[in-house]
Amino acid sequence: MQEIYYDNSATTQVCQEALAAATLAMTSEYGNPSSVHGRGAAAFRLLNSARTTLARAMGVPAEELYFTSCGTESNNTAVYGAALSGGKRAKRLLISSIEHPSVEQAAKYLMNKGFSLEFIPVDRQGVLDLGALRQQLNEEVALVSVMHVNNETGTIQPLRQVGAAVRELAPEAVFHVDAVQSFARLPLELKAWQADACTISGHKIHAPKGVAALWLRGACRVQSLLRGGGQEKNFRSGTENMPGILALSAAAEEACTKMEQNERQISAVRKRLLAGLQAELPDLRINSPDNAAAHILNISFLGARSEVLLHYLEQSQLYVSSGSACTSKSSKGSHVLEAMQLPPDVVDSALRFSFSRFNTLEEAERAVSIIVQAVQEIRCIMGRNKKKR
Amino acid sequence: MQEIYYDNSATTQVCQEALAAATLAMTSEYGNPSSVHGRGAAAFRLLNSARTTLARAMGVPAEELYFTSCGTESNNTAVYGAALSGGKRAKRLLISSIEHPSVEQAAKYLMNKGFSLEFIPVDRQGVLDLGALRQQLNEEVALVSVMHVNNETGTIQPLRQVGAAVRELAPEAVFHVDAVQSFARLPLELKAWQADACTISGHKIHAPKGVAALWLRGACRVQSLLRGGGQEKNFRSGTENMPGILALSAAAEEACTKMEQNERQISAVRKRLLAGLQAELPDLRINSPDNAAAHILNISFLGARSEVLLHYLEQSQLYVSSGSACTSKSSKGSHVLEAMQLPPDVVDSALRFSFSRFNTLEEAERAVSIIVQAVQEIRCIMGRNKKKR
Repeated sequence: MQEIYYDNSATTQVCQEALAAATLAMTSEYGNPSSVHGRGAAAFRLLNSARTTLARAMGVPAEELYFTSCGTESNNTAVYGAALSGGKRAKRLLISSIEHPSVEQAAKYLMNKGFSLEFIPVDRQGVLDLGALRQQLNEEVALVSVMHVNNETGTIQPLRQVGAAVRELAPEAVFHVDAVQSFARLPLELKAWQADACTISGHKIHAPKGVAALWLRGACRVQSLLRGGGQEKNFRSGTENMPGILALSAAAEEACTKMEQNERQISAVRKRLLAGLQAELPDLRINSPDNAAAHILNISFLGARSEVLLHYLEQSQLYVSSGSACTSKSSKGSHVLEAMQLPPDVVDSALRFSFSRFNTLEEAERAVSIIVQAVQEIRCIMGRNKKKR
Repeated sequence: MQEIYYDNSATTQVCQEALAAATLAMTSEYGNPSSVHGRGAAAFRLLNSARTTLARAMGVPAEELYFTSCGTESNNTAVYGAALSGGKRAKRLLISSIEHPSVEQAAKYLMNKGFSLEFIPVDRQGVLDLGALRQQLNEEVALVSVMHVNNETGTIQPLRQVGAAVRELAPEAVFHVDAVQSFARLPLELKAWQADACTISGHKIHAPKGVAALWLRGACRVQSLLRGGGQEKNFRSGTENMPGILALSAAAEEACTKMEQNERQISAVRKRLLAGLQAELPDLRINSPDNAAAHILNISFLGARSEVLLHYLEQSQLYVSSGSACTSKSSKGSHVLEAMQLPPDVVDSALRFSFSRFNTLEEAERAVSIIVQAVQEIRCIMGRNKKKR
């Protein structure tokens, strides 16, 4: 029985290009880029080249790109850094109500430090309420942080309009985009969004865990989080994670070069899975908007609790998730689906399928029959239990 | 011509055990430990097992050990966390005058936040002045941070006496030990030192760059630096760097199991190199104390500026450093040698040789002749230049 991995928004398989790059930095090219001798210089050249490649893939200048250890570090740095670098009057933090915990928790921490935190509401599709945002924006806002693609539903935010509103009504605010779920799957349009800062992460795009990046527009003032030896132009001290950085760059280049081709593959898988499920289970509740990013599909199987269904599916080596990995071990329901004001039975039976370019149509067909059988069995058992009571 | 790598305090070659472990986490075991399905559970088990192995190597309980992205993050977390978790009266930070920049810069940053920073002086061997320390300690001290082995000279600090003094005179202070240069080379005696916190780093012990750990005694209160998904028992959010963590654990197990054997090998290399140099260059100034850690040897070649000599040596693929990698690109002299009050000509001509178990006696003999020839050539050129003036 071959595994079917539909949890690519939690983490991805490392691609061959990334593995080869990481291996290079763990074998022949093991130098420390800060060493001034030839071995260090070779590492420094590889580091620069990786930065240039990743910057090209993100569409930003290489000198504005900083490597970090994870999406959480990038998001935390953006939130803390923007808040602490703002003017004295800039004490309000605006984030959407469906941000990742690494944005939300960092902003909440600042509430002890004289900042106020306000959430930008979303509609039932998870799309930001632009009218509400405009009312919230003023010159006291230090930070606006909005994710590009939501990690649970795939909802794409109208970042062009968000950016325009920020520039009009809170021109001094730092506008940060968490693009962890969208990078290398959808084009980043940071200029059109008028963004100041952007987070991307390696292990969501087939690079290893332990590496990420933060883009900061040159004119944007953001304080450092880590201090010491002065690496990354004194913005992020700490010996550079060379295996991770080279792998991130290689994975980004591979994914971005073939973005459209990959998107077609992923869309075909999504379509096949969805059509198969809809044919057999007419009462599906699809929580992802029609225009969601192709690689994330959130579906509620009413009457089958998601935890139960998830464990049923893993018996057949079909791996999916209920909500995000970063909140998976909490007992609370999805804060994203709740912010979308979905009813409790929809939230409780929601599963997230997240795809990669390595998923195949053949897998999608097998997945349909595995899921249909599991849902029917669970509903049958639940129905029997109800009758017994 | 075979390379001779004597810059192991800057970074080390990744050992086979670490490479294999990292590769495993980048191939078949690619799961996210936070995922609740079988693939995540497998990763979670590997993570726990790595923590247990590393904890055993460090002699600490596994539940008190946290993985981080680098020594800088561990040191920063200890410094910021201890300071911000201290009582209202505890506003003094004490660090030795030869700490790594990641301790010093973090402490300096806190000077803007109502803390005072004081340096514990060292003698001409780089050993902490215990009398001065005792005078500095009182109940207003929030943090005492002292490295076990100095990264430039190999000086070993009398941590047992430091810990006893801290416990007697500043019982509420957090006592943090930066063991980045000593771990897996000398035994950690954290209990005997009465330490509260300890930093170790992967890439100094033949694991890849991008992973480190921080031990925190259970009763020791230290604030988190990264916030988000709640990984590492909510102390260090961010998806775990599984390749790095598994590799760190494998490298630590390998190095600690064979610590005495490795130490004998390294001592033999050091002895051979030193004897060879002393036979040919009688005017060496050895800056490392006699009882320094075997893997670090700091020597001044009076009359040959260290930058010049370093580049001479790299022509023969002999890689050494002047000072530490983390300060190598600064134009200032070594703050360590200056704190030891060595005269400028000694500081300016100091080279650090740092060894690993992969260095051989045959290399040491080749190194002697390369170094001797280089020193003689440089002195000859400098002498000619002096005469010309």
